[in-house]
Amino acid sequence: MNQLAIDKHREWHGKVETRVKCPVETSEELAIAYTPGVADVCLEIQRDPSLSFTLTGRANAVAVITDGTAILGLGNIGPEAGMPVMEGKCALFKAFGGIDAVPLCLRTTDTEEIIRIVKCLQGNFGGINLEDISAPRCFEIETRLKKELEIPVFHDDQHGTAIVMGAALLNAAKVVGKQLSDMRVVINGAGAAGITIGKFLLKLGVSDVIMVDKCGILVRDETYENRAHEEIARITNKTDRHGKLADAMKGADVFIGVSVGNLVNEEMVRSMADRPIVFACANPIPEITPERALAAGAAVVGTGSSKYPNQINNVLVFPGIFRGTFDAHAATITDEMMMAASMGIAATVSPEELSATYILPKAVDRRAHRAVAEAVKNAAPKK
Amino acid sequence: MNQLAIDKHREWHGKVETRVKCPVETSEELAIAYTPGVADVCLEIQRDPSLSFTLTGRANAVAVITDGTAILGLGNIGPEAGMPVMEGKCALFKAFGGIDAVPLCLRTTDTEEIIRIVKCLQGNFGGINLEDISAPRCFEIETRLKKELEIPVFHDDQHGTAIVMGAALLNAAKVVGKQLSDMRVVINGAGAAGITIGKFLLKLGVSDVIMVDKCGILVRDETYENRAHEEIARITNKTDRHGKLADAMKGADVFIGVSVGNLVNEEMVRSMADRPIVFACANPIPEITPERALAAGAAVVGTGSSKYPNQINNVLVFPGIFRGTFDAHAATITDEMMMAASMGIAATVSPEELSATYILPKAVDRRAHRAVAEAVKNAAPKK
Repeated sequence: MNQLAIDKHREWHGKVETRVKCPVETSEELAIAYTPGVADVCLEIQRDPSLSFTLTGRANAVAVITDGTAILGLGNIGPEAGMPVMEGKCALFKAFGGIDAVPLCLRTTDTEEIIRIVKCLQGNFGGINLEDISAPRCFEIETRLKKELEIPVFHDDQHGTAIVMGAALLNAAKVVGKQLSDMRVVINGAGAAGITIGKFLLKLGVSDVIMVDKCGILVRDETYENRAHEEIARITNKTDRHGKLADAMKGADVFIGVSVGNLVNEEMVRSMADRPIVFACANPIPEITPERALAAGAAVVGTGSSKYPNQINNVLVFPGIFRGTFDAHAATITDEMMMAASMGIAATVSPEELSATYILPKAVDRRAHRAVAEAVKNAAPKK
Repeated sequence: MNQLAIDKHREWHGKVETRVKCPVETSEELAIAYTPGVADVCLEIQRDPSLSFTLTGRANAVAVITDGTAILGLGNIGPEAGMPVMEGKCALFKAFGGIDAVPLCLRTTDTEEIIRIVKCLQGNFGGINLEDISAPRCFEIETRLKKELEIPVFHDDQHGTAIVMGAALLNAAKVVGKQLSDMRVVINGAGAAGITIGKFLLKLGVSDVIMVDKCGILVRDETYENRAHEEIARITNKTDRHGKLADAMKGADVFIGVSVGNLVNEEMVRSMADRPIVFACANPIPEITPERALAAGAAVVGTGSSKYPNQINNVLVFPGIFRGTFDAHAATITDEMMMAASMGIAATVSPEELSATYILPKAVDRRAHRAVAEAVKNAAPKK
């Protein structure tokens, strides 16, 4: 047990607080920031609700929303228990993106109710960050909210993970001297993260993706109960390979694990293509330890842990994604903006710095966050 | 139009922001405030959800919740247009109570839905401040939430107004040399504020209250559509007086207006008891101007406006009420705590300072906020 983390949290009593931005020390100041002066500000917004983006903090505010059903790798531990993660996220939103984020853990797991609550809350925020909601509900919630809200929606577990994985792959490809368009990628774990990574890497230009779940390789001619499996099976596994994870990995250029620990052995790594890339991101125990993967011939290894080189951490993504989106006044976060974010992160590592043990900047590297924000802003649709 | 207020709001882009309370500059710090260290903090809360009050910011957090239906005196202007008021409130919560308050304006006016949303959000907060929700829905919402939530609920329009009115009356009584137990109080406006003021002043010990609404004096033998009118009629108007506002005011010791401007004339003030107290709090135009009330013989006059002496402003209440409630770890805000708040405010004005034109401290007087917090904390039920 991490007693230091618990002690620190007990000492902090929360990782974000509010700070007052307007003077309220005198009666005159109060009459401007509050009543009676505020009445005319209200009437301006009533006249034109879009002025809520300039006359309130809305334009810089993100709601970090979860229902506590898939907190980290801990599963459904409930909304209150999810709070330390969401608060941490809000601290990072501010520290690395200058964004005012509010943690809102909802005491409901009903898809329709979550959608409805977020719709009722949207007038307070410039964007919605969905977090740690279990699959497949998270797909429905994200899809519906993207369609039905007037502000950008980002599901960090899906898109944040996909974007940083894309950045890792862009730089790992340089290290091993391959093109994305020549690469076959095996993704183990067809949950929210895995499926979105698969779709995203195809957009980034990889040749083929093979998705593997508990039942084995997802194939085109199969019927799946999970609609998301059905959908991803239609656009992946070009060569119609059947079998288990070991079958998928034979000859593959890249293994990406977003599932559970200890699923991959040395034999499987040895069966991959020349100079294979292994991103074993299960937490806290990776699908294969970096030591074993390297011993089996992996050329580049990344994990989800800060204990090893090449931590693939979506902290690199969300502050900059929203910073750039807000700075561009964009109403949605497009595929182009997400690809630009991957490239922004990748480009932060200079050719001199780039190596098999340094493919990604550290999560606390402010250059990376600035690069993401800038790239995302520039990639946003021009009005 | 208050162009200065609009310009300032445009410059501020929001009146509260977030501030990071934990270090996140290094990978080591990140590993404590966020993953992987945070996981054990989450598990602690899963084991015992009440630890959310010590391991997150919950214990010091208030949600300021409105549906935008009764913003200031402006009516139903919508949730976005209500935001500047709620943000202002959050700024004052922090400035005068050290409380982290989040404005949440809801895009729904459905009573059941509002109740449900607040229930789903309660795990994030230590208290709920309801604000500017129109009557009679606000009664149902407040009553139900008080019963169904595990954290304190305060409806500022009702209880904040009642508490500061109580404080004003306590000190005005000293100025005119009367006892509350000898006073008959006429309240014009039987909405959320008026009814709660009536009930509260009876608890504080006034002899009788007469409620007057558009239809005239509320009487015991009448049937009212509005259940709240029915209820308040049963405990007020002891002498069963019938008629209009002018009839109610004859011989009354106190007039309290929480309705609309220009309803009271000099004749009505002259018909009151000796040394009458007039609190004409309609905004922006009072029921009678202080000039006219004084000319007609009022001994003490208060209004809702900072342009005159004796502003009766519930800014004096809400930061201290929640500060004291939080410091006492109280699960509800009891009548005793609210009465203590009135007395705390009243006691802030020393006998030397007290006069017909100085019955209440200024809203920005930090002594008053500290006094409220202290009084409320001491009046909280001992565990």
